[in-house]
Amino acid sequence: MSATECNAEWTVEAALAGLESLHPLTPPTGRSTVPLAFLHIVDRLKHIPRTGWVNSGIEKPETIASHMYRMGILAMLCPDDSVDRDRCIRMALVHDIAESVVGDFTPSDPISKEEKHRRESTTVEYFATTLLEKVNPRLARELVELFEEYENGDTKEAAFVRDIDVYDMLLQAFEYEKEAKGAKNLDGFMKSEARLTTAGVKQWARELVEERTQFWNSIKAQSAE
Amino acid sequence: MSATECNAEWTVEAALAGLESLHPLTPPTGRSTVPLAFLHIVDRLKHIPRTGWVNSGIEKPETIASHMYRMGILAMLCPDDSVDRDRCIRMALVHDIAESVVGDFTPSDPISKEEKHRRESTTVEYFATTLLEKVNPRLARELVELFEEYENGDTKEAAFVRDIDVYDMLLQAFEYEKEAKGAKNLDGFMKSEARLTTAGVKQWARELVEERTQFWNSIKAQSAE
Repeated sequence: MSATECNAEWTVEAALAGLESLHPLTPPTGRSTVPLAFLHIVDRLKHIPRTGWVNSGIEKPETIASHMYRMGILAMLCPDDSVDRDRCIRMALVHDIAESVVGDFTPSDPISKEEKHRRESTTVEYFATTLLEKVNPRLARELVELFEEYENGDTKEAAFVRDIDVYDMLLQAFEYEKEAKGAKNLDGFMKSEARLTTAGVKQWARELVEERTQFWNSIKAQSAE
Repeated sequence: MSATECNAEWTVEAALAGLESLHPLTPPTGRSTVPLAFLHIVDRLKHIPRTGWVNSGIEKPETIASHMYRMGILAMLCPDDSVDRDRCIRMALVHDIAESVVGDFTPSDPISKEEKHRRESTTVEYFATTLLEKVNPRLARELVELFEEYENGDTKEAAFVRDIDVYDMLLQAFEYEKEAKGAKNLDGFMKSEARLTTAGVKQWARELVEERTQFWNSIKAQSAE
């Protein structure tokens, strides 16, 4: 994503117009029972590789959909009974859904947090009002609610889902290191452990870091032989 | 997958031993709070391309995790209020989880339905008893229940999830055709529409088929020009 693109006036309609393989993209009518245009846009998540891994030279990295998939499984493991687990699963599945149109920015991309949020929240609003409302008003409402709750991060559910977003990345970083048999060090990603806020996932991270330390010790021992 | 492999005596332990990039794979202890070995195995779903598309020459096709991801979104669209939607979402996310170890067979592979079911159900049992029970007994139980319910197919929830499994494939087939601008015809996959059993998803399929017919008509009109 170039700086020029990031500074241009961005609208959902213009972004969608630029996604050639989606066209023709027909919004639902009052008679539709399935939001086909929405589902075709969601399909993009299956095929967009996560930028962080691409920038780190990982070949054929996971897609945005694959990342949200394991977050769904992590949400099913929720260790805190006072948290609404099913709401977390749903939140995990939709929190990055706007990236299907906006793309996957990393903190090093030339776009402000505010502009990123504006684009994503405009996209979610567009999904709700233009693509879902006539077909499934419940999901239209829910999508906006879950996205905003995640972004605000001020409920127990949002705090947990924000943590498993980071945790899936920590796991994935270590898994790429292991696959490369130590030829790749992804320490930069592992530093995100510091962003965790819930006691449960902090403990999960300690156990992961311990496993990773053992892995790197065995690699060092092998190369010392 | 060769016929020889399929006829050999298959065990979860032997299959896992052969998955080199997973090793060392340490089962949880009584002190573990996160089932790391289980999550590392689940990671494979993010990276295994679905066999049906590979066999059809689709470049970089969706992974098993990506497919289950959109099934999660389709489950959120459940049109039948008498169906437990959250249970469907969870079932969608786990129904293919055993493929992380067993692999993704298609009906043309030399393995019987019974042997495929045996391998998958043994794998799910292994996940539950060896990798999850000590850490998260709730998910251990739930995984087995949801998988068996899906396989048996005799609840409303299972019938709906089996239908969205097919529906995501119908959508994906059409999306690959559209991306190829008509240079690829995936009629063979679209025939699976006949396997749908619920009224809601049957209607969804009619709307998809209508959209696909319009697409192919426009391709024919273009080539006639």
